[in-house]
Amino acid sequence: MSPSANPPAWLKQPPPPGSYRSIFKWGAPDRFHHPKPALLDYLQARLGLRREDWQQPRHTGLETIAPPEGPRLAAEHIERLSAIVGPENAQTDPFARLRFAHGQSAEEILQLRRQQPRAVADLVLHPRHREDVVTIVRYCHQARIPVTPFGGGSSVTLGVRPALGGVTLAMTTHMHRVLAFNETNQTITVEPGLFGPAYEDYLRRAPEHFGARRRYTGGHFPQSFEYSTVGGWIATLGAGQQSTYYGDIYDLVLSQTCVTPAGTITTAEYPASATGPKINDILKGSEGALGVLVAATLKVFRHRPRARRCFAYMLPTWETAVLAAREISQGEFGRPAMLRISDGAETEAALQMYGLGHPLVDKLLRLGGLPARQRSLLIGQSDGEPGFARHVARQSGRICRRLGGRWLSGYPARRWARTRFLDPYLRDDLFDMGILIDTLETAVPWDRLAHVHAGVRAAITARPRTLCLTHASHFYPQGTNLYFIFITPLPEIEDYQAFQRSIIQRIAACGGSLSHHHGVGKMMGPMMEQHLGKEQMAVLRVLKNHFDPHHIMNPGGTLGLE
Amino acid sequence: MSPSANPPAWLKQPPPPGSYRSIFKWGAPDRFHHPKPALLDYLQARLGLRREDWQQPRHTGLETIAPPEGPRLAAEHIERLSAIVGPENAQTDPFARLRFAHGQSAEEILQLRRQQPRAVADLVLHPRHREDVVTIVRYCHQARIPVTPFGGGSSVTLGVRPALGGVTLAMTTHMHRVLAFNETNQTITVEPGLFGPAYEDYLRRAPEHFGARRRYTGGHFPQSFEYSTVGGWIATLGAGQQSTYYGDIYDLVLSQTCVTPAGTITTAEYPASATGPKINDILKGSEGALGVLVAATLKVFRHRPRARRCFAYMLPTWETAVLAAREISQGEFGRPAMLRISDGAETEAALQMYGLGHPLVDKLLRLGGLPARQRSLLIGQSDGEPGFARHVARQSGRICRRLGGRWLSGYPARRWARTRFLDPYLRDDLFDMGILIDTLETAVPWDRLAHVHAGVRAAITARPRTLCLTHASHFYPQGTNLYFIFITPLPEIEDYQAFQRSIIQRIAACGGSLSHHHGVGKMMGPMMEQHLGKEQMAVLRVLKNHFDPHHIMNPGGTLGLE
Repeated sequence: MSPSANPPAWLKQPPPPGSYRSIFKWGAPDRFHHPKPALLDYLQARLGLRREDWQQPRHTGLETIAPPEGPRLAAEHIERLSAIVGPENAQTDPFARLRFAHGQSAEEILQLRRQQPRAVADLVLHPRHREDVVTIVRYCHQARIPVTPFGGGSSVTLGVRPALGGVTLAMTTHMHRVLAFNETNQTITVEPGLFGPAYEDYLRRAPEHFGARRRYTGGHFPQSFEYSTVGGWIATLGAGQQSTYYGDIYDLVLSQTCVTPAGTITTAEYPASATGPKINDILKGSEGALGVLVAATLKVFRHRPRARRCFAYMLPTWETAVLAAREISQGEFGRPAMLRISDGAETEAALQMYGLGHPLVDKLLRLGGLPARQRSLLIGQSDGEPGFARHVARQSGRICRRLGGRWLSGYPARRWARTRFLDPYLRDDLFDMGILIDTLETAVPWDRLAHVHAGVRAAITARPRTLCLTHASHFYPQGTNLYFIFITPLPEIEDYQAFQRSIIQRIAACGGSLSHHHGVGKMMGPMMEQHLGKEQMAVLRVLKNHFDPHHIMNPGGTLGLE
Repeated sequence: MSPSANPPAWLKQPPPPGSYRSIFKWGAPDRFHHPKPALLDYLQARLGLRREDWQQPRHTGLETIAPPEGPRLAAEHIERLSAIVGPENAQTDPFARLRFAHGQSAEEILQLRRQQPRAVADLVLHPRHREDVVTIVRYCHQARIPVTPFGGGSSVTLGVRPALGGVTLAMTTHMHRVLAFNETNQTITVEPGLFGPAYEDYLRRAPEHFGARRRYTGGHFPQSFEYSTVGGWIATLGAGQQSTYYGDIYDLVLSQTCVTPAGTITTAEYPASATGPKINDILKGSEGALGVLVAATLKVFRHRPRARRCFAYMLPTWETAVLAAREISQGEFGRPAMLRISDGAETEAALQMYGLGHPLVDKLLRLGGLPARQRSLLIGQSDGEPGFARHVARQSGRICRRLGGRWLSGYPARRWARTRFLDPYLRDDLFDMGILIDTLETAVPWDRLAHVHAGVRAAITARPRTLCLTHASHFYPQGTNLYFIFITPLPEIEDYQAFQRSIIQRIAACGGSLSHHHGVGKMMGPMMEQHLGKEQMAVLRVLKNHFDPHHIMNPGGTLGLE
């Protein structure tokens, strides 16, 4: 019997307070986005699952957490540190210590579902303002206590794991203010604990908030947008789904203030400069290992939703889709904000997920010479001044048609945009039903794309009953990223770790970067020296030793520094 | 009698071999670009010069150089170092030691004209390839001998001055090869000693040189283009006159190989990455103080000269020109490659220089409500795909007209483009006739532009008989640069230094950056700590001590490191 005829018993209640599930469940506790029956049919067929696999959720983490050991931190330190922020902003209760110790990697989720958490904070502090952070960092530096900044907790690289315990700084509780809005310069200065939607709301409603003449957008919309913070974006070098036009966070941050054990650095807000190596850029992507970001000034853009143009084309093959995307990226007619090409496997799955899987659609595409399994979906969306956005969409379309692409209207792109922040909710349901869905991503120059794609796909699909869906979604004239989604029956933790490591190693062996926009964290840390080479790692270590001589900042392997 | 009726006795012969003038004369020895009579009339009137001031060239530097003292480097070192590159690539003769010790700053030129050079290399080596550089740097590191890389020698910040003597590396003699051209990725990998025109020729004639399908451009055209090198651009964080579209050199360099006393670093060619602070970016702008650049991979663009659109408008005032340029920069319809706005004073001079000073033009502009002294010239040029370039020019024009601008055809922009690399030749003539022309530049956010412009202009024009012409020519959504040209009767060297220092201090006091694209060198070095703050300077020093623990690399104050 197919799942669509007999849907699984999805969990439809918010997780019980104090449960493991309340720590790892994605997004809002009371929000759900269950897989569509068509997607389930597809997965059942492709993964060769049996009916009973779907029926009973397992390892759901509904249990109340078991109190972790410790805290190991001396009572005197806990008392002194708590006094800095006030007792109402200091937590040593088991739940807080676990909750602020976990991100969203599959590894952490598997561990929490098995009730085997691997790391725990000793003390969770909620700093009220920059001065609190300065005092805490100074104290911890002197007392050699680990400090781990915690933003939205959406890290998939063990970036917020307090590997050595110590103090975790919950940045979202108080430090989410707008410090300045400058319409003349088109910049905004914010504290790091601001979540994506609040950040975007300040900009969209700038006339109401700041008396601005126009509405603005930050242009930064990572998949984690709703549950990640400005500070987290900067710390990990995030890239939004519209980075092809707006730039990634490295491009967007004009200046920042960072509190480090070696002192507080504030960089200047010049639009450009030729005064030596740029300290502002050195601090970006430092993942809390050099200091704590307490303020950042970002570039903002005019918000023009009515100028937006959505388009979608079905290309005959992955190779032609890559050619189309490269020509769009190198054509110098402006670039789309969002552009995404899916390989044959992902296209097939996407047709299911976006409701385009109707047999009539398939028939029409086949008649048009675009057979299933090979055909490759390209969706895009252009922003900017209306004439610009129109021109970008038009030129992109010309390129797709020249390469044999069939116009699919703007619907698939709009459909994608509508649910793009919901997809992570699927993961919890699939895990419940014994299916792992996880991702790894890499950056590639154009001339290595095919090699990396084929090599990594082969490594993933060599595992029995495993699906690999791949897309590229961040484009540059010199290359793009590859984003691999792998789906397989839920493995044991060690098996998962070995499988994941083998994929990362294949990415590296094929010549992809260690990360395009997820960051390094403690997960990729061990591979950094091999990836960058010892000369470059030595530079990172020199910076580490300067800013953080006692190695208290996000210690335990971040960026491969220990 | 006006100069136009009785032109000065311009020097029209190549400087004598072995003379001071052959060291400081701009550009090709046999190429001249004398000031137009109209410009002389203008300068005579504005500076209140007497007729006799113009008649006799002075301090022309035609004398044969006096042999400098030394070399101070031990004969054993000279012998060993010369053996690395071969005797034919090692020079200790007085002329080479002086020639490869001077850039193009007014200070150096004044000193050479007075036959008072201030610095001299002990040994000039012409490395043949990367391996030579590795061996030289290793030897000098062990023996603690200063090493100063020398590219085109167009530095205006004492960047190539061998302040402590030692070895100067002449990079242009052999190390000007193309190491790779990658049409798929749109990149080229070159050695650093390649001059601008040769670099551009490789790209424009890529089909002939590399069998490429298309012609390309580097998009980087600094004023010094003809006599500066790719390596020099990267070492000093240069910006070309078309950086508003193509980006400055910081944006253009994808990866590099740098030979340092701590080892050789080669960064990877990924289009983006999230693997911590980017070593590739840390090396950019290091001005030879961390190591010697031996290879760089740069982004290239399609060469489409027929798509180019030139435009020019006369705006009623500097303020409206700034508004127009800001709206063009923030309007998100794509950006022009070149955009330049001149304040009232520069507009008046430009009308003379570009042959637009005809009384009829003036009358027409006055009738159009654009009186002299206030009106402000905006010229622009858009590149890219033809429809894109057309759209950018059209939208820019709309903005100018909305702000009261008058269309002047494309002529002024084309006129500017035709002679843009000739203007530096004027300097030698003016110096001969006792007139100093020099420049300083800064980056400003939009909201500080007016303050910096007014404040610095006031500081310059407070000097008797001194002209100040200002333009902005590199645009970003968040701000621009200001480029101050000052013209005054030629001062004594100490007077010049004091005057220049006072302008720099005023720029800093008004909130401009220490440099937008000239770099820091040893001239701005002493102001770096004040400009960046001690926390940021400490980071630069940490990098210095790591890469160059014995401080042999371009020592003597580069970037304010000593």
